[in-house]
Amino acid sequence: MSHPLLSRIDSPADLKRLSRAELKQLAVELRDYLLQNVARTGGHLSSNLGTVELTIALHHVFDTPTDRLVWDVGHQTYPHKILTGRRDRMPTLRQYGGMSGFPRRDESEYDTFGTAHSSTSISAALGMAIGAQLRGEARKAVAIIGDGAMTAGMAFEALNNGGVPHHGKMADLLVVLNDNDMSISPPVGALNRYLARLMSGRFYAQARESAKQVLSNVPPLFELAKKLEEHAKGLVVPATIFEEFGFNYVGPIDGHDLDSLIPTLENLRDRGGPQFLHVVTKKGYGYKLAEADPIAYHGPGKFDPAVGLKKPAASDAPPKPTFTQVFGQWLCDMAAHDTRLVAITPAMREGSGMVEFHQKFPGRYFDVGIAEQHAVTFAGGLACEGLKPVVAIYSTFLQRGYDQLIHDIALQNLPVVFALDRAGVVGADGATHMGAYDIAYVRCIPNMSLIAPADENETRQALSAAYAQNHPVAVRYPRGSGAGVAVQPTLDALPWGKGEVRRQASAVAGQPRIAILAFGTLLYPALQAAEALNATVANMRFIKPLDTALVAELARTHDVIVTVEEGCVMGGAGSAVLEALGQLGLPRQTLTLGLRDEFLEHGDPAKLLSLQGLDAAGIERQIRERFLGAASDTQAQAAVPAASNVTPLVTPLRG
Amino acid sequence: MSHPLLSRIDSPADLKRLSRAELKQLAVELRDYLLQNVARTGGHLSSNLGTVELTIALHHVFDTPTDRLVWDVGHQTYPHKILTGRRDRMPTLRQYGGMSGFPRRDESEYDTFGTAHSSTSISAALGMAIGAQLRGEARKAVAIIGDGAMTAGMAFEALNNGGVPHHGKMADLLVVLNDNDMSISPPVGALNRYLARLMSGRFYAQARESAKQVLSNVPPLFELAKKLEEHAKGLVVPATIFEEFGFNYVGPIDGHDLDSLIPTLENLRDRGGPQFLHVVTKKGYGYKLAEADPIAYHGPGKFDPAVGLKKPAASDAPPKPTFTQVFGQWLCDMAAHDTRLVAITPAMREGSGMVEFHQKFPGRYFDVGIAEQHAVTFAGGLACEGLKPVVAIYSTFLQRGYDQLIHDIALQNLPVVFALDRAGVVGADGATHMGAYDIAYVRCIPNMSLIAPADENETRQALSAAYAQNHPVAVRYPRGSGAGVAVQPTLDALPWGKGEVRRQASAVAGQPRIAILAFGTLLYPALQAAEALNATVANMRFIKPLDTALVAELARTHDVIVTVEEGCVMGGAGSAVLEALGQLGLPRQTLTLGLRDEFLEHGDPAKLLSLQGLDAAGIERQIRERFLGAASDTQAQAAVPAASNVTPLVTPLRG
Repeated sequence: MSHPLLSRIDSPADLKRLSRAELKQLAVELRDYLLQNVARTGGHLSSNLGTVELTIALHHVFDTPTDRLVWDVGHQTYPHKILTGRRDRMPTLRQYGGMSGFPRRDESEYDTFGTAHSSTSISAALGMAIGAQLRGEARKAVAIIGDGAMTAGMAFEALNNGGVPHHGKMADLLVVLNDNDMSISPPVGALNRYLARLMSGRFYAQARESAKQVLSNVPPLFELAKKLEEHAKGLVVPATIFEEFGFNYVGPIDGHDLDSLIPTLENLRDRGGPQFLHVVTKKGYGYKLAEADPIAYHGPGKFDPAVGLKKPAASDAPPKPTFTQVFGQWLCDMAAHDTRLVAITPAMREGSGMVEFHQKFPGRYFDVGIAEQHAVTFAGGLACEGLKPVVAIYSTFLQRGYDQLIHDIALQNLPVVFALDRAGVVGADGATHMGAYDIAYVRCIPNMSLIAPADENETRQALSAAYAQNHPVAVRYPRGSGAGVAVQPTLDALPWGKGEVRRQASAVAGQPRIAILAFGTLLYPALQAAEALNATVANMRFIKPLDTALVAELARTHDVIVTVEEGCVMGGAGSAVLEALGQLGLPRQTLTLGLRDEFLEHGDPAKLLSLQGLDAAGIERQIRERFLGAASDTQAQAAVPAASNVTPLVTPLRG
Repeated sequence: MSHPLLSRIDSPADLKRLSRAELKQLAVELRDYLLQNVARTGGHLSSNLGTVELTIALHHVFDTPTDRLVWDVGHQTYPHKILTGRRDRMPTLRQYGGMSGFPRRDESEYDTFGTAHSSTSISAALGMAIGAQLRGEARKAVAIIGDGAMTAGMAFEALNNGGVPHHGKMADLLVVLNDNDMSISPPVGALNRYLARLMSGRFYAQARESAKQVLSNVPPLFELAKKLEEHAKGLVVPATIFEEFGFNYVGPIDGHDLDSLIPTLENLRDRGGPQFLHVVTKKGYGYKLAEADPIAYHGPGKFDPAVGLKKPAASDAPPKPTFTQVFGQWLCDMAAHDTRLVAITPAMREGSGMVEFHQKFPGRYFDVGIAEQHAVTFAGGLACEGLKPVVAIYSTFLQRGYDQLIHDIALQNLPVVFALDRAGVVGADGATHMGAYDIAYVRCIPNMSLIAPADENETRQALSAAYAQNHPVAVRYPRGSGAGVAVQPTLDALPWGKGEVRRQASAVAGQPRIAILAFGTLLYPALQAAEALNATVANMRFIKPLDTALVAELARTHDVIVTVEEGCVMGGAGSAVLEALGQLGLPRQTLTLGLRDEFLEHGDPAKLLSLQGLDAAGIERQIRERFLGAASDTQAQAAVPAASNVTPLVTPLRG
């Protein structure tokens, strides 16, 4: 279909001129535009189809960007982006150099706060509301947050802080709860159940009506009851928990009905103080296939909208398993082997590969909601009782359970296994989701061990090795698939703390002897580079405990030590090797390759790794430039500053 | 007074034999014993005086340690320790080798979960309750949590998860809310206000009575209303938010009245599913001085119970200011200078030195409650509006805002200053509060800078330098006071990114040239050690950006590079120097001194630093042993493994 109205919307100002009927037509066009584009690029779909009307209404009613919209999680902001001057960039969505899949302050003035991890919006919007107050500006701040994101503690901290006066004044803050009854995994927890009760109407509106009916037959008593209600608010009609937190609660209203949304938002816009609007939407709304299976359409790849997602044909060659799948299979196998195993996910059943485990072992599966802090300490409690918890969590999300990892798990030396998925470059999700820091932030914690297996089979063996320990161990593996090494079905453990030499350099007179110490899946490009360089390659596997005997052996037999890892260089596995060389008294010329000290853009993971110099060509090039004096045609790599006044152990061969 | 009853209580079993009257007498003795001991050792007082009866009642009613008591924060567990066989260890409280001030699993089987950071107890107890269910054991799990700790998001995550069935079964979990209307700082936030309303009775009990009275005059209607109440629970009597979360709420009851506590706990013990008991206590109860000023008596040093805390006499020489005070003074001065400055604390006004700022600039002071996650992102929102937020937070507590630091502050490069107090060894609080990891976990974040000033005056200058930047900067400084360097009253900034050479070694033939690179306050013992060693000493100041020019200069002019820092060695500032040497192509013999890869015990900070080899003698000894071939009388230091097969750049001088 064509988009005659949408094609004329270049900023929210254009929205304000439209009639209600035109806005409704715009919603139809926007939804279609969205579907057509996401089907071509891949990206988040269900959540964006669900926020079409809400986005139109917000930009229609509020004076953006002067008024601040903060979108929680932010994967539902495609309609927002399309309406704020970025319509034509949709074909570049989530591609390198293209538009981000999340709001970004550096992308548009309408993106007032970058989001992606959940549950940050109320805190940020409250800061903005109070900031405006302090500056004497009348702007409004609006946080739009899903019911899933509302289960994270951070949202409650913000509500708790937002519903009370600051210095005698209430903040002009509107929280829009976009209640779509689904985070990524199915909903869990008491809050969700509570919201369902609010929505059902049995609890609230209906009860209010019944009470009035009953009481109105006895007028004097009704008056008294009303007075009593004023005296003790919440007596006849129970207050919602949001009112208990000091917010004026309105709702629930239909989030797909512009005739409800617009006047309600106008009303709330004109009131001072903390407002809470409960909006009910349907994920995937308007696209039947997504409505029927919003999880499948949460973040699809490319597809034909007329047909929907393609089911793999029986004749298709089985693809390489992803590391996520390798973990999922191991989890089921180990659970069958050991009844003490329990598995915990903070609302990432699908992403973490736990669907099959949930089906096979429902009584040992715990989805605690978007609640990483609780997930970690809850696992600690289970471990205290003799169970063997496995916490499946993305590298980037364990950041939110960091204190709990130190204080509740490591300090007490509790045997909990952390399966860190998405460790390293994540691709289209971009900087917010980079699993770049876990090596640095886990390695420094006493009692923790950390393994970076090199391939699928080692990942399974590393998980078994971690599980066999009587202390906490994290196993990190990247998004997607690896070298394709066949996975053995046994539960054999990787030898604890031991790396292995995978390639031995041959001695060549006059050439510096180079050893590449690879941590994790970058072993394979390192091996490729080593072929060209005649270098030794070790598959180190263990970041902590580091195989210092192997480090010592390699240092003694080589002139140059190169480390390679898919993680930040600062404080990473390479640093661990440097520390070991220092302790061993074996100083060497070194080169630590990994992710540079910068936030990566979104884009194809292979391209991002290449840009970081972490493909075979990049590893080879950086080693040549540094130690073999080879000039490079490619642009200078900032991670390798020119060494000036070097006192080399090895005289580089020039040319 | 003597303690005839208490002296016969060697385990909770002894409690069970006592009559109600004897239990009341025991409370009197226990409170006295507590006061006398804490006055002698120092430690937490107000909180422990407040939990005397609750502790007696819990151990009397529950079958500990089979039933699990998890004490949130844990600084209120002295009565618990006294009653569980550790009475005689009270004089060793919080001293090296003595009893911990917090529960520890390795100290007693009655300490079921180590705590100290707040708000972990419900998660842990829920894990234990579900663990017991999975193992088919009938034990109970009880979390005892204060109203302050309840404001942290983690507690809500746990409530949200605890009030719903898991696999069709509700967990046998009792949450005891110990509502004493005070965390460490005065209470803030909506939840606290809500609890006050619950407590006041106007909202709950009284409203219930009024409603009944009104309605009971009209019997048929009353019946109907009752029916309606059953049909729509919460209609006439509003449900508490704890009931909304699925807990059976009981309270509030008087937490100092054993006649209320014991039967209520017995009742709750015998019920299945999630129970919530709201207990009201008074911090400092029974000691008038502490009741009158519970904040001053939160964690006093030694004092005479008959007299109370000593006020400093006017004639006393002014003591050296603590780093906390230096920060507090800077905050006031910079706020006077720049109206954009706002300051944020997560419930640590006193500990962070912000009392004066609060008094002078109330409108720019934000205590957000125990809510580190929110504190960080709230600051981000303020920064977006052009304000200049300073977040004052202990090193150990920033761990809880780690994801927010990366995702909301650093990624968006927002100019927020983090004042990291208690960075390094903290002393009596022990392992849970160690500020050991911040260098490693902050350094790896792109866009972040991190400064470790060496003394009081540099701390002020470092804060000014951080404040002047247009990106996020953390300034770390330790607990207590430093070298006593006079603080200049100006707001001059430390030169950005520059260290300085503080001592130059003189050339001695045959002796390796040693450079010590000190980060932070350990500069001073390093200078002392350098006198004995004839070593060069640099005050590095900046961990990030590292002064690589200075590192290069020192490496070129010295044979041995030693780094010293009060933080974990793994991934710390020493690692940053090793990374720089690697990038510069200047390999050297190195020794990285700092906190070892272990959790420290509690005890006197100077003693702990000495045990870690971080006093002047330790620094000297380790350098001698490693590079000067000197045998040492002291016990072997595990952090310095014997280097075997060393290929030294420098031939060590033996003897």
